[in-house]
Amino acid sequence: MDVTPQQMMQQTLIALTEQYQALPALNIDLTRGKPCSEQLALSNSLDSMIAGNYSSQDGVDTRNYGGIDGLPEAKALGQWLLDAPIDNILVGGNSSLTLMSQAMLIAYQFGLGGEPWQNAKFICPAPGYDRHFALCELFGIKMIPVAMNDDGPDMDAVEALIGEDRSIKGIWCVPKYSNPTGAVYSDEVVERIAKLGQKAGAEFKVFWDNAYSVHDLAEPAALSSLWQQAEAHGTLDNIVMFASTSKITHAGSGLAFLATSERNLADIKRFLGFITIGPDKVNQIRHSRLLNSPEALTRHMQAHADILRPKFEKVVEVLDRMLSGKGVAKWSNANGGYFISVDTAPGLASRTVALAGQAGVKFTPAGATFPYGKDPQDSNIRIAPSMASVDDVEQAMSVFCLCLKMAALEQGLAKFN
Amino acid sequence: MDVTPQQMMQQTLIALTEQYQALPALNIDLTRGKPCSEQLALSNSLDSMIAGNYSSQDGVDTRNYGGIDGLPEAKALGQWLLDAPIDNILVGGNSSLTLMSQAMLIAYQFGLGGEPWQNAKFICPAPGYDRHFALCELFGIKMIPVAMNDDGPDMDAVEALIGEDRSIKGIWCVPKYSNPTGAVYSDEVVERIAKLGQKAGAEFKVFWDNAYSVHDLAEPAALSSLWQQAEAHGTLDNIVMFASTSKITHAGSGLAFLATSERNLADIKRFLGFITIGPDKVNQIRHSRLLNSPEALTRHMQAHADILRPKFEKVVEVLDRMLSGKGVAKWSNANGGYFISVDTAPGLASRTVALAGQAGVKFTPAGATFPYGKDPQDSNIRIAPSMASVDDVEQAMSVFCLCLKMAALEQGLAKFN
Repeated sequence: MDVTPQQMMQQTLIALTEQYQALPALNIDLTRGKPCSEQLALSNSLDSMIAGNYSSQDGVDTRNYGGIDGLPEAKALGQWLLDAPIDNILVGGNSSLTLMSQAMLIAYQFGLGGEPWQNAKFICPAPGYDRHFALCELFGIKMIPVAMNDDGPDMDAVEALIGEDRSIKGIWCVPKYSNPTGAVYSDEVVERIAKLGQKAGAEFKVFWDNAYSVHDLAEPAALSSLWQQAEAHGTLDNIVMFASTSKITHAGSGLAFLATSERNLADIKRFLGFITIGPDKVNQIRHSRLLNSPEALTRHMQAHADILRPKFEKVVEVLDRMLSGKGVAKWSNANGGYFISVDTAPGLASRTVALAGQAGVKFTPAGATFPYGKDPQDSNIRIAPSMASVDDVEQAMSVFCLCLKMAALEQGLAKFN
Repeated sequence: MDVTPQQMMQQTLIALTEQYQALPALNIDLTRGKPCSEQLALSNSLDSMIAGNYSSQDGVDTRNYGGIDGLPEAKALGQWLLDAPIDNILVGGNSSLTLMSQAMLIAYQFGLGGEPWQNAKFICPAPGYDRHFALCELFGIKMIPVAMNDDGPDMDAVEALIGEDRSIKGIWCVPKYSNPTGAVYSDEVVERIAKLGQKAGAEFKVFWDNAYSVHDLAEPAALSSLWQQAEAHGTLDNIVMFASTSKITHAGSGLAFLATSERNLADIKRFLGFITIGPDKVNQIRHSRLLNSPEALTRHMQAHADILRPKFEKVVEVLDRMLSGKGVAKWSNANGGYFISVDTAPGLASRTVALAGQAGVKFTPAGATFPYGKDPQDSNIRIAPSMASVDDVEQAMSVFCLCLKMAALEQGLAKFN
């Protein structure tokens, strides 16, 4: 008697389910882009940078109050990360997310180089960073998703939206090794983004979160300078750039940076003058002494890459081995950043993450990479291998592939019912 | 021929003006309550507290992300400062002003244990802290001044206001060594403040900035526990307490603390979860290791007092010597905190500060200690002697007294015209 496709699928699912049930007890977490201990240890000499000398290069006693926009030597570090003029840099506390929230609050409530936002909408290339989307939710800013392509956001869609809706006040961008797809914006996309302000008006802001600007795993990808493009197109007031050392030194105790036009900077400094007497300047000199040249920064990041590369390679190796040619998923081969992004066939992401979770392997909840947590295809899964060991990554990804195959078979069989 | 009073005053003013014009070139700044270098050096061993051990008492790797409300050992320090239960403490970044602004933003925009504030008003005991008043201005909260007495705010006035106006949503308090008068709230005032919430409703918040809770210059003043009083009167949701180490360790790179009810804390932690992945925990363990017991904290503050006391005594000594019995001013004899407050006879403060400024001695602008910068009596001047040397304090205060006498004579003579 011939075996029907349905029977074959059933038998395969039974076999996979047996494998699944025979898995050992696991507890592996690939949800968040946290540096591992080995990476953190690369920056432990931060703690020996003061050695009794609390004086900045300009002779400021960093222990005392003051200096709302940061020390020049800390701004220099921001300049290397953001590719913007040193005079346009502001150095914040330990979190670029906080700077983003402050820029958004100022724009929304007080005006950032323009009138306060009213019923604002934001363009959100998706998949993207869940915490960006959460900030829009916090301030009640309506999110409009656009597709994220291999060379950046779908700029035809972005330009069309801006042309037809004046209430669009911004766009989120992670231009290099985008979270989670790893895409790097092409020169053309960067230029088109720089031009958006010409049509969108003074209140429109590109929130340019260059979180992974020096986080290369292979030959560094070239990213066109948004600052230069915006300068050329007269739209510097439309861009606000962010970076931090969170994934360079110690994740919780680093520095955050912002770069924008003088006009916007004046609004931001005015606001900060109300809510603080200045940032932690001692931590600024710790960082500027550890990372005291672009070359030192590059060497430091290469040491990170040496730790991270085997983990990223392992993710792709397991995906290649177990899923290639199966037609159930495609995935990125990230050259930098903190994530590998898997797009399953439609409708499989939630079930895959749930099955893996039940087996003790945690992935970021399906949907988290889309505005309002809703992935219309139920397809994108973000994988963050930095924190786990290479062995754990291998085990977790084997479980992942097993769960994805089970989800695909379940879906296929459901069609027969 | 008899000399008229007018002639006598004219002759005195001429003599004083000659003294004033003969002053050497000066550049002394008594505007801000900044610690001096000698005080900052008391905490330099902060920088040797890590020594390779980044682990918290509970084994948390403080270098990484996370821990939105702070480490237990850092909360303990907050507990000693705020006299509130450790579970109700939140540890922030380097600025209690930032925590205050965040609590105000949450209450105003999202609701802090209640509905968001609408057209809110705040009661502002005056003279008070200019940066408190500025936060109200930032958020468009209307300020209603009430008198600041020797035992705290005029509670009859406060209670009457709350009885008649439901849009009053809060009150600013600096309960111990109040900025700038040095007043310590009496037990009765603390209890009456704890009861305010019973009448004022859920949205009413006491912003209790206990900035100088351990900043004694003499025998510590006893401050009644607001937390206990609020607990007894069922108003814990109505109080939000703040403190920081800014005037304990390094002013720009310390820790800030907040204490409030579980209900309010949930709203604050929810908000913080949007805007940060956590505070600088490495700096938390630095501080908790340096100030590792209430006794260590007390010893540390005594060392501060030994540096500050001669400066405060010098201010009062010069005032006593040059102005006693002249009827042109009265002044506080602060037993702690960072300021001495002088109340001139009405109408003399601006002119005194201006004359001193022209002679190279800077005082906080007259009026700064009142809402909207308007002192109705033009009387209060805040003196901050911490940053200057004892010799500079003596010289600055001599100039101050000279200028005040000149202002008084000018005013007296103006009446004859």
